[in-house]
Amino acid sequence: MFRSAASVDRLITLLGKLPGIGRKSAGRLAFHILKIPLEEALALADAIRDAKEKVGECQICFNISESSPCYICSDPKRDRSLICVVEEALDVPSVDKVDSFRGLFHVLGGRLSPLDGIGPDDLSIKALLERMQGDEQIKEVIIATNPSVEGEATAMYLSKLIKPLNVTVTRIARGIPVGADLEYADVVTLSQALEGRREF
Amino acid sequence: MFRSAASVDRLITLLGKLPGIGRKSAGRLAFHILKIPLEEALALADAIRDAKEKVGECQICFNISESSPCYICSDPKRDRSLICVVEEALDVPSVDKVDSFRGLFHVLGGRLSPLDGIGPDDLSIKALLERMQGDEQIKEVIIATNPSVEGEATAMYLSKLIKPLNVTVTRIARGIPVGADLEYADVVTLSQALEGRREF
Repeated sequence: MFRSAASVDRLITLLGKLPGIGRKSAGRLAFHILKIPLEEALALADAIRDAKEKVGECQICFNISESSPCYICSDPKRDRSLICVVEEALDVPSVDKVDSFRGLFHVLGGRLSPLDGIGPDDLSIKALLERMQGDEQIKEVIIATNPSVEGEATAMYLSKLIKPLNVTVTRIARGIPVGADLEYADVVTLSQALEGRREF
Repeated sequence: MFRSAASVDRLITLLGKLPGIGRKSAGRLAFHILKIPLEEALALADAIRDAKEKVGECQICFNISESSPCYICSDPKRDRSLICVVEEALDVPSVDKVDSFRGLFHVLGGRLSPLDGIGPDDLSIKALLERMQGDEQIKEVIIATNPSVEGEATAMYLSKLIKPLNVTVTRIARGIPVGADLEYADVVTLSQALEGRREF
């Protein structure tokens, strides 16, 4: 504890609340911030304030955005027949990097997780169904939740809700990541890779 | 990249400049900041600004401090015959946690590292020597630089400068950390532990 610098102590405490940053790392970060030029540190402080003040949610897809509808929802070049459902806004740029995908998104805001008390009403599932009922252009929904237990359960739950709407529901493929080694693949992944095999 | 939220992109870029935080972690941190309550995020932004504005260096020991002389240098209960020399201000609270040490500190602001272009003039070595020449109370200097190659070289360099001033110069012991396993100790540490053995 820095008794001679309460402001540093406070900075360490607040940095230590960030995910994956313990007290030791927080100390290192705080000292780094003390060492860098004033304008760099203030830029970071302002960026935090700025992001909080400017960023909201797109009212259509629930992606983070400074405007609503967001950049993606309002892009006329997008394929409006295709919606990719992801858990978090953080997943949008990852999927959007794939050149062959030019569809729209829907951000759930998490995944079903009864143990954490997260049920269907805590996610933007109702909004997704309303969005689909109100838009006849939508032909396919790709469910791209994470391949975890909760992600799979969420995918299953969504597929049951969406199928009756006469829309194709697909799930992203699970298998061996490109560049990985079969030797180190776990048995569940390998079993999924075999199950999802495709003819040449 | 979040084309629909430039402020988030900027926050990710700035967080990614912090030590030990890559672009992926920066993304996670930025999203965490977007999710927490506004007041918590603003508290962090203010803490960064506050620390930069309020914190300076103690003009005696070069520890970070909101006042000069710092809390430690101006504490009348401290043993003024003893100075512990450390590399960074971050090391001060670590040493100060040791109850049996109630002396003063001197923060070098780094260590000698010719490969990085850090020479004696880049550290507060001259100030340390002046401080010792101006204060006859000082009887012992404990050099507590890190036990790395540069830290040892710095300790050696300092000891040669301080010895002629008729002051005891000591180096913190290197050996097996308490609670560690001999089996996993590296040979250099073990050799130092043997060399530094003490009679019961």
